[in-house]
Order: sequence, then C-alpha cells, then structure tokens
Amino acid sequence: MDNPIRIGILGYGNLGRGTVKAVKQSSDMEIVAVFTRRDPADLELEDASIPALHIDEITDYQDKIDVMILCGGSATDLPDQGPAYAQLFTTVDSYDTHAKIPDYFEAVDAAAKEGGNTSIIAVGWDPGLFSINRLVSESIIPNGETYTFWGKGLSQGHSDAVRRVEGVKAGVQYTIPSEDAMDRVRSGENPTLETAEKHRRVCYIVPETGYDEAKIEHTIKTMPNYFADFDTDVHFITEEQLAKEHAKAPHGGFVIRSGQTGEDNNQLIEFSLKLDSNPEFTSSVLVAYARAAYRLNQAGTTGAKTVFDIAPGLLSPRPASDLRRDLL
Amino acid sequence: MDNPIRIGILGYGNLGRGTVKAVKQSSDMEIVAVFTRRDPADLELEDASIPALHIDEITDYQDKIDVMILCGGSATDLPDQGPAYAQLFTTVDSYDTHAKIPDYFEAVDAAAKEGGNTSIIAVGWDPGLFSINRLVSESIIPNGETYTFWGKGLSQGHSDAVRRVEGVKAGVQYTIPSEDAMDRVRSGENPTLETAEKHRRVCYIVPETGYDEAKIEHTIKTMPNYFADFDTDVHFITEEQLAKEHAKAPHGGFVIRSGQTGEDNNQLIEFSLKLDSNPEFTSSVLVAYARAAYRLNQAGTTGAKTVFDIAPGLLSPRPASDLRRDLL
Repeated sequence: MDNPIRIGILGYGNLGRGTVKAVKQSSDMEIVAVFTRRDPADLELEDASIPALHIDEITDYQDKIDVMILCGGSATDLPDQGPAYAQLFTTVDSYDTHAKIPDYFEAVDAAAKEGGNTSIIAVGWDPGLFSINRLVSESIIPNGETYTFWGKGLSQGHSDAVRRVEGVKAGVQYTIPSEDAMDRVRSGENPTLETAEKHRRVCYIVPETGYDEAKIEHTIKTMPNYFADFDTDVHFITEEQLAKEHAKAPHGGFVIRSGQTGEDNNQLIEFSLKLDSNPEFTSSVLVAYARAAYRLNQAGTTGAKTVFDIAPGLLSPRPASDLRRDLL
Repeated sequence: MDNPIRIGILGYGNLGRGTVKAVKQSSDMEIVAVFTRRDPADLELEDASIPALHIDEITDYQDKIDVMILCGGSATDLPDQGPAYAQLFTTVDSYDTHAKIPDYFEAVDAAAKEGGNTSIIAVGWDPGLFSINRLVSESIIPNGETYTFWGKGLSQGHSDAVRRVEGVKAGVQYTIPSEDAMDRVRSGENPTLETAEKHRRVCYIVPETGYDEAKIEHTIKTMPNYFADFDTDVHFITEEQLAKEHAKAPHGGFVIRSGQTGEDNNQLIEFSLKLDSNPEFTSSVLVAYARAAYRLNQAGTTGAKTVFDIAPGLLSPRPASDLRRDLL
C-alpha cells in the first residue's frame, strides 16, 4: 500500500461534515486537519483524533497536505478561497454558480498554475455528475435533446424564500419533477419544456400564531421567479411535524438525452440520483475527485480542471488492471 | 474549423453500417473508405461517394486515415485484427468478451506502442458506458452494491441457441429485467441476486411444419446455462409476425449503485439505456471515442486505452471553454 493521500478540509458546515465521513470510508486517504474561521474549539468534531485548526494556521500545512478540499459556499466563500488556496494547495471544490463558472475557472487556473497545483472546480452532482452525463450523451447522440430534471429535493434557495414571507415561522420547499413531462421526454417526443413545465413545487409551512394561512399561501404562490410560474402546493404543519418529517436534506434528479441515430431509431440515455443526503453525496463526489486531483498533480499536470477533464479511472483507489478485469 | 478527422472503417456488418451513419452525424469527421474481406463491389453502401475497398489495400492508407474503427466481431475477428491494426493505425473497437479483456488489452497495447498509435478497446455500452457507471458509482459510494440489469433486449447468443433447437425454423429471444428485482435494488435493500433472479427470458419461435410445439417449448425451457435457471416464456408465431414485429435489434439495461454515506443515508445512482437499435448505438459510442483516440494520439499518448482512461471532454467536438460555459 502506498502512503495514504493526506487530506485537509477547509470549512465545517454540512459539506465539511460530509467530507470527514466520506474520507473515513476511503482506505487510501487520511484527514490531516479541519480548518475553520471560527474558534476551532467550537467545531464539535465527532472524531476527536482529527485536529481542528484555525484557518490562520493553514499556510503551515503546505508540505503536510496533498489535497485541500474546499467546503465553503459558492456565494461568498469560494470566489475568494478558490483562487487563494489554489495557489497554496492542490484543491477540489463544489463551486456551483453555473453562470460564473468560466470566470471562476480562469481565476483558479492562473493561481493553481502559479503555485504548481491542480484544482478541480465545480465538483458534485450538478455541476458534476449531471454535467458529465449531459456532455457524454450529447457527444454520442448528436441528433437529439438533453433534459435535466431536479428533485424530488429540498431546495435551499426556495426554502429561504418562503421563510422570508410575513407570517411564516419556519418552512421548507421541495422541488418535484413532473412525471408527465418526464414521460413525454422518455417517449422520444423531444418536447420544448420550460423549467416551470418540468417541475412543481411543494411547501410545508409552520405559520406564526394568528396569521392568516390563506394570505400566506397567496403570497407564496404569486411570488415572482420563485413560484408564480409553477404549479405550487402549500401545506401548513406544526413545528413538531417539521422537525420530525422534514429534517433531512434529500435531493436528486434526472438527466435524459433523447435522440435518433440512423434514420429513425430512437435512443434514450438516462442518468438519475435519489439521495437521502444531498450534502453527504456531494462530499463523497468531492473526495473521489480529490483522489484524481492528487494523481494529476503527481503526474505533473497543473492548473484548473473540471469533471470534463478527469478520466473515470482516476477516481478509483483500485489499480487500472483490476478495474479492467472486474468492472469493464 | 480544423481539418476533419479522417476515419477508416474495417468491416461492414451491422456495426460498420451504423458507424457510417454515425460519422455522417459528426461534422468534424469524414469517412475515407470502408474496408472489407468480401468483394468490395458487393457492399451496397448507401452513400456511393464512400470508397469500398478490399482489406488488402488497407496498408496503403496509413497516411490517409487518422483513426481506423474496427467493426468486426469479438469471437473471431478482433482477437487477430485488434493487435494487427493497432500496429498500423490509431484504432477503436468494441471487443466485448469480458473475461478475455485483460489479455486482449496487453496484446493491443504492445502493438499500438510499437506502431506509435493509440487504441481504445472494448468501447460500446457494455463494456463501455455501463463500465464507466460501475466504476464511477463505486468510487463515489464505496459502501454499497452495484447491480447490472440487461434488457429489454434482443440477445444474439440466446437467439442463436433457440434457433439450434430441433423443429425451430426461426426465432428470437428477448432478455427482460425483473421489475421485482429492480424494485428491491432501488429500495436500498442491497439484495444478493443471481443473474437468473434479475432477468426473465421470452422467446418468439416459428416452428417447422408438423413439429410438436410442446416438445420445442420443453427443450428450450430445460436448456442448461441458457434457459434452465430462468423464468422463460415461449410464444409460437408465424414467419410473417417474426418479420413484422421482431426485425429490429432493441436493447438496453440498467446499472444501479445503492449504498450508504455517513451512518444511514441511502444514496442511489442509476444509469439506463433504452435503445431502438443496439448496433447503431454501439457505433455512435465508437465514433465518439474515435475522436478521443485521435486527440490522445495527437497529444503523444500511445498504447491501449479503455473507456476508464478517457476524460469525458475528449468525446465532444466542442471546445473545452464552450463545454464549461454550456454544459457544466
């Protein structure tokens, strides 16, 4: 057995916690430390043997860590952290602001090359595994259409939106793919579908005492961008129900490519995820790509990469000859 | 636009015909010639502008062809052709004898390196896209089980077997995945399932005049290895029905990985294909990987490769920056 890949984790929210768990399921890796901007004593790491350190100490670890997994958010953390730490470490991150990926790629690429590091950005399932399936299926069936459906899943952005409505004490929102729209896609019809036709939305709301439920429901259903265009259901529940039935963060979705080869042969490629825990799954993807980042860097490849640049074999701890024998 | 990738096609059975169609859907490629062991005048190419040449002329084309797509079969053609032509050309093939892949890889690898060529072997959907999904999903969710289901699809080997039964004039066999077994897998139960529990078999038989149908049915259902262990249905039909309802070669299947992250969060990854034409789809995969083989060879990478070694971005004719912007 080679020396284990030495992993650092920056950030200890849901993604950081999931990353600790995922590394522990990987026999070829070890966690060197978790870094935080908070007081490290407050982290409450389940495994007391893992050092929790303040982010100010991170630069002392350049020679002790092979890959730094950046577990911050895309809105405010990664735009700075991505380029900053790509200069110091080989990194992976789950940057997911689709529209800004090209700019983020360029910034991280320059920093990683300057530092002689390898940084795989936008890793996870969308962007990530879903992106790979969009790309591969389009490349194989050029004459066709690709459809992405999200859900059933808890949407953080939409849950935040309903919680901002006056009279809402707490609540969650699930995005649910339209079975009807999926059936049309699977039939080979290649329909034109807006996002609102592909999904419906279901909200579970705990109202403040004395607020008019009908008014809350109306405000939610008519909220521009978030709900107005969608088929939306609003259910009112108690705080106890919310805690008991809506504590997990499930998610998932579908990428479907429907197209034709030859004259009229329909071909359908479908990829789907059904996840009990969205953050734990994203963390698991990050950890597999950390292995690839390490290997690419060892092989002398530097700069920013995306999942499009990573050969599948680099994700597995097993030797290439075993993979050919057992999985091909 | 760069010069088109110059494609040669060796063999003009179902796979060769599908490859011609698939290259025509690829704007960055052109077909230089189709090579055959038969009399080239007999090929009946739909597009008369494509030269049909005898295989003896193939060595004259080393400088005129960038990638030779080997469209022969795994049983008798590819064991010789794979290594032989890897020495002369960058190649892709659909070698699919799973158990012999390691030996085949070594033979092609030596030949390709000697010739300075790049040869991607065992390309298609299984081995191929299914293999990638087995590998990637196992790498992301190490704690779990992977299940491959085949069908609904026409099985060539099993169709041949029923046609060898005395009294059978013609016939086809479909492999059908067990919905019950798939439901158990999707539920997160992680059951142990033999191939016979995962699939059932349905035969459509045209009997010779005067033969006892009950005897034919019994012979089929008790045939060792092929049918004895399976839930098998046998239907008797006319030659007209066979020609009308069973002329296509549909296939497909499912790769499902079910596992756990953290303590008890179930995560399900599913990939599936539903193909009207198995050979045309396999050809389309070959053509996408021909693009990758060409690029790897241009970049100086030689030897045998499998789908595990190919980064997804190499499959697309589009520039990497476009892929990041549009598909990530």
